[in-house]
Amino acid sequence: MLRRSLENRDAQTRQLQDAVTNVEKHFGELCQIFAAYVRKTARLRDKADLLVNEINVYASTETPNLKQGLKNFAEEFAKLQDYRQAEVERLEAKVVEPLKAYGTIVKMKRDDLKATLTARNREAKQLTQLERTRQRNPSDRHVIVSFDFSLKKCFVRYAVQK
Amino acid sequence: MLRRSLENRDAQTRQLQDAVTNVEKHFGELCQIFAAYVRKTARLRDKADLLVNEINVYASTETPNLKQGLKNFAEEFAKLQDYRQAEVERLEAKVVEPLKAYGTIVKMKRDDLKATLTARNREAKQLTQLERTRQRNPSDRHVIVSFDFSLKKCFVRYAVQK
Repeated sequence: MLRRSLENRDAQTRQLQDAVTNVEKHFGELCQIFAAYVRKTARLRDKADLLVNEINVYASTETPNLKQGLKNFAEEFAKLQDYRQAEVERLEAKVVEPLKAYGTIVKMKRDDLKATLTARNREAKQLTQLERTRQRNPSDRHVIVSFDFSLKKCFVRYAVQK
Repeated sequence: MLRRSLENRDAQTRQLQDAVTNVEKHFGELCQIFAAYVRKTARLRDKADLLVNEINVYASTETPNLKQGLKNFAEEFAKLQDYRQAEVERLEAKVVEPLKAYGTIVKMKRDDLKATLTARNREAKQLTQLERTRQRNPSDRHVIVSFDFSLKKCFVRYAVQK
């Protein structure tokens, strides 16, 4: 039963490791592309601001009606750029930063897994030792009970860590 | 009366020249900035396409619910990029190209103005000559009438050109 439970845990650990690696890889990619998307949006906003300025400059050299029309267009276009600015700030704060934070989160999870793996290996080694003792000297109750006890302590520790 | 009419035309020609120069300058600027705006929009669309791909790749590694959600998001985001593509094409065809065409239009108007200016100068020269003839020999009707006639012909030509 102990063997099977250890094997189960082994599979579980591997699954967790794969999940962590997967998230690390894809969240990293997503973070980079989102950041690039935000930068391109910011550059589009800059160009649009230039356009608004130039339209205003041109409008000031024109006849009243055309001037009014151009100024109105420039004003609405400038409002669009305000929304674009809000989009840039929001994407930065609500998407790029949280994705960046996953860098640290993934690192912590990896450390957790490493600690668990170390505990698991120690457990397996002690199990092997216990079986060897049992085979070598089946009647030596004292040693076997002592080993069994330390192994159970080890399981408890492992369960607490988990 | 002839002098005054020539001076009026002079002012008109200067006004037209200023208008053409103004349009040439500002339409050139507007064309460049609009073209840059279109390019930035196209780059934003490219980045967003990358993002759609990456989200789809990540979705395929995830559990069914998350996968479905991510796929839906990627799909809607891809539709937005289709609109962005339409925006790029429309701006290119309806804004940048017409503004570019103004380069040729301005050149033609400038040639027109130059032809008008040449005609005007010829006219002014003949007027001066006519007055000089008048002052030198007020009784020489024959020469004065001939000059007057050629000057009128000149005005007619000028009016037709306009």
